[in-house]
Amino acid sequence: MLSTTSRTTLGRAKERGSTDRNDLYEVLDTALVCHLGVVADGHPMVVPTGYGRIGDTLYLHGSTGARSLRAGDGSEVCVTVTHLDGIVLARSIFNHSFNYRSAIIYGRPRLVTDADERMEALRALSEHLAPGQWDYARRPSRKELAATTVLALSLEEASVKIRRGAPKDEEEDYDLPVWAGVVPLVTSYGEPEPDPVLPEGIATPVHVLSRE
Amino acid sequence: MLSTTSRTTLGRAKERGSTDRNDLYEVLDTALVCHLGVVADGHPMVVPTGYGRIGDTLYLHGSTGARSLRAGDGSEVCVTVTHLDGIVLARSIFNHSFNYRSAIIYGRPRLVTDADERMEALRALSEHLAPGQWDYARRPSRKELAATTVLALSLEEASVKIRRGAPKDEEEDYDLPVWAGVVPLVTSYGEPEPDPVLPEGIATPVHVLSRE
Repeated sequence: MLSTTSRTTLGRAKERGSTDRNDLYEVLDTALVCHLGVVADGHPMVVPTGYGRIGDTLYLHGSTGARSLRAGDGSEVCVTVTHLDGIVLARSIFNHSFNYRSAIIYGRPRLVTDADERMEALRALSEHLAPGQWDYARRPSRKELAATTVLALSLEEASVKIRRGAPKDEEEDYDLPVWAGVVPLVTSYGEPEPDPVLPEGIATPVHVLSRE
Repeated sequence: MLSTTSRTTLGRAKERGSTDRNDLYEVLDTALVCHLGVVADGHPMVVPTGYGRIGDTLYLHGSTGARSLRAGDGSEVCVTVTHLDGIVLARSIFNHSFNYRSAIIYGRPRLVTDADERMEALRALSEHLAPGQWDYARRPSRKELAATTVLALSLEEASVKIRRGAPKDEEEDYDLPVWAGVVPLVTSYGEPEPDPVLPEGIATPVHVLSRE
């Protein structure tokens, strides 16, 4: 079950809300970036960034200088993950919409300082971005680790919204001679493009070729 | 030229910054949703939402009840638009990255009350979501207009970041026997799916079929 705090309980479009924790995991595990919202110098600031998940913890990382990661000081953040699945063309302009799956997580991230947890978090972030690379590419050096801030955000307070399927039109509009339906949006991986300076004889690894 | 306020001047990865206003337009005009960040009851809140652009004004809309649109009261928002173009696989985990194009806009939105400007804004929002539909589907009724909040956000204070191309590895890592390159991410439109209750004989309009 997901939380039912005032800010994770939907005020509108309640039928789009999910209270199934597995929907949250599915939304998080199949997207690549989140939008991290913080309050910086009194104003909102939203930045796209990668993430990783281990159980009910979301990990974020970045340069130790990043303004968006100062939240490790105990202030609140909002992390939003959005999949756009289609454009919903209704019979009226008003009922046009997106098909989407989105998750919103609220909380106060914890600065991760334990060396083992930091490494597990970075592995989760790396495997989320590029599965198989953690055991393939060069691991972080001591200097690189020192330059990296890792934050942990509990998935305790989260909400999920999902819209699927055909348009919902006003009763009287169904008689209009207007086409209605959904144009799906599909995101896919293209052919891997080798670094132009890659020496000959280094084959594209199977875990890169087989990504879907 | 784009602005050079303290919050739109990049602190890190300066080489990724663009100061060309045309890059801002290109990022905005080719994405479908933004992530709107507000401060709600003292905490950050980030929601995905559609938008439209006319010149140097970004228009947002939503239900009059939407918490995220209370910003019409003069408080600050941050609007972020992100295109994910590829996964950058480097020789080291540390230098893994995304190829992306993103825009961040700061400002205090203005509540749009003028009837003509509201209609032009809704047209821009609609045409951004689904080009051609404004002249095809039923236009908003007086009741629907009354239920809709429209906000205008100036593009005056904005920054654009773009990362393209191959990984940038540490000098000493280029000798490693590790494949490096980019896996492109491609978003495309699928075959339009008619509403199951659509009467026979209503053809899919050309502007829907020809969308790319």
